[in-house]
Amino acid sequence: MMNITVVKIGGNVIDDSKKLSQFLKEFSALPGKKILVHGGGKEATKLSTRMGIETTMIDGRRVTDQQTIELVTMVYAGLINKRIVALLQKEGCNALGLTGSDGNLVTAKLRNPYPIDYGFVGDISTEGININFIELLLNNGIVPVICAIMHDGNGQLLNCNADSVAAAIAIASSRIAKTTLMYCFEKSGVLKNIENEDSLIESITPASYKNLKDSGVIVKGMIPKIENALDAISQGVESVIIRSSDNLLDSKGTTIKS
Amino acid sequence: MMNITVVKIGGNVIDDSKKLSQFLKEFSALPGKKILVHGGGKEATKLSTRMGIETTMIDGRRVTDQQTIELVTMVYAGLINKRIVALLQKEGCNALGLTGSDGNLVTAKLRNPYPIDYGFVGDISTEGININFIELLLNNGIVPVICAIMHDGNGQLLNCNADSVAAAIAIASSRIAKTTLMYCFEKSGVLKNIENEDSLIESITPASYKNLKDSGVIVKGMIPKIENALDAISQGVESVIIRSSDNLLDSKGTTIKS
Repeated sequence: MMNITVVKIGGNVIDDSKKLSQFLKEFSALPGKKILVHGGGKEATKLSTRMGIETTMIDGRRVTDQQTIELVTMVYAGLINKRIVALLQKEGCNALGLTGSDGNLVTAKLRNPYPIDYGFVGDISTEGININFIELLLNNGIVPVICAIMHDGNGQLLNCNADSVAAAIAIASSRIAKTTLMYCFEKSGVLKNIENEDSLIESITPASYKNLKDSGVIVKGMIPKIENALDAISQGVESVIIRSSDNLLDSKGTTIKS
Repeated sequence: MMNITVVKIGGNVIDDSKKLSQFLKEFSALPGKKILVHGGGKEATKLSTRMGIETTMIDGRRVTDQQTIELVTMVYAGLINKRIVALLQKEGCNALGLTGSDGNLVTAKLRNPYPIDYGFVGDISTEGININFIELLLNNGIVPVICAIMHDGNGQLLNCNADSVAAAIAIASSRIAKTTLMYCFEKSGVLKNIENEDSLIESITPASYKNLKDSGVIVKGMIPKIENALDAISQGVESVIIRSSDNLLDSKGTTIKS
């Protein structure tokens, strides 16, 4: 059985061109079959300001009307995705940029507009992942680079959450390969003390998580991330690593494993 | 030997959402293996106006500075490409949107900046086409949908001419399959009298072209199109059809053949 690493990056790398180049160099050198999933960063908001489109956020989530889905498609699937792909090609990594509509990679469902109508926002499930297409690409030495714009199969593009996309793809991948999911962000991993980068928790299991949560060591923002990780593991992913986007090949982060 | 049809569409279809839907429905129904190449239409100019980016044209060609390459990447590779891919998926056509950087599909060369510096504009040759990747996709029932943003292999995206991209891809395809190249535009084909859509010239050969040109029947704007077509044929393309984007499955247009 082959190994697949699904790596997710967000704004801290995407918004910093030096960090992005360095990260992509290291990602290219990562051994084995791999998939990159990227979020959007600040460029969509910057562009919408420049175009005079108002950004509406509810509970930290972008409301996606017709103008906004066009905007995020331009920025995520156009500007950022192709910038990443061109830089990976420069490093000799045969990247292929994808939305969910490309090769029917991921079909999403429009989020229920009640009680809050987020507009063209989609939710994805593992059933919506075209794992045969991913397998075809990986078996031919191609590295999928996936942004979080999916489609509904009926001609409509939908804005999705990149963390959820990475998780769903890792779960689907685990049916064909031993899969590791890496969430890269600005911290070195899950910390005992958020102010101290040296207080890294090296490993979390479902049992130890309960203790860490009950004793208040794991704080608010980290709870959904870890619970998503535990869910991915319960659905077949070998391990989830929450880690810094720096030193991809060396540093370790927090490994979540059953 | 298989058959491949390379179809190129431009602004007259892309800028008209009804025409685009109808065209893509017919393209989906086109039998055999096929590739779609699309230009940009007016949306890049509209967006640049909205963003306050000045558009500089020299001899009808867009000068592509850093801001402009980002803009056309957003519009061509993001907005338009993914709109087309999502609509084709709706029709059951397994489309995959591509720039030249994706899967290292097409490597272009930065145009010589002397005597005129067009900025990040690229020229492509058949040698720059990754025909193995195209073959892999076609053999797996995937329909490539290609915009005219290519890369230089060194991390830089380049804006190219979509007619030239279509020709280079058709020439490369003719090494693995009997290839037809269709240029779709607003007229029914090459006309004896540009005011009269019924004056269609049904077929042109290298010999008849010389007569048509010498006698002044073929006018200025059509000369480079036909000469490109004749060049494609001399390099192995079976036939080039210059035709309307309407009634893709029925109407004929002008067939250029050796």
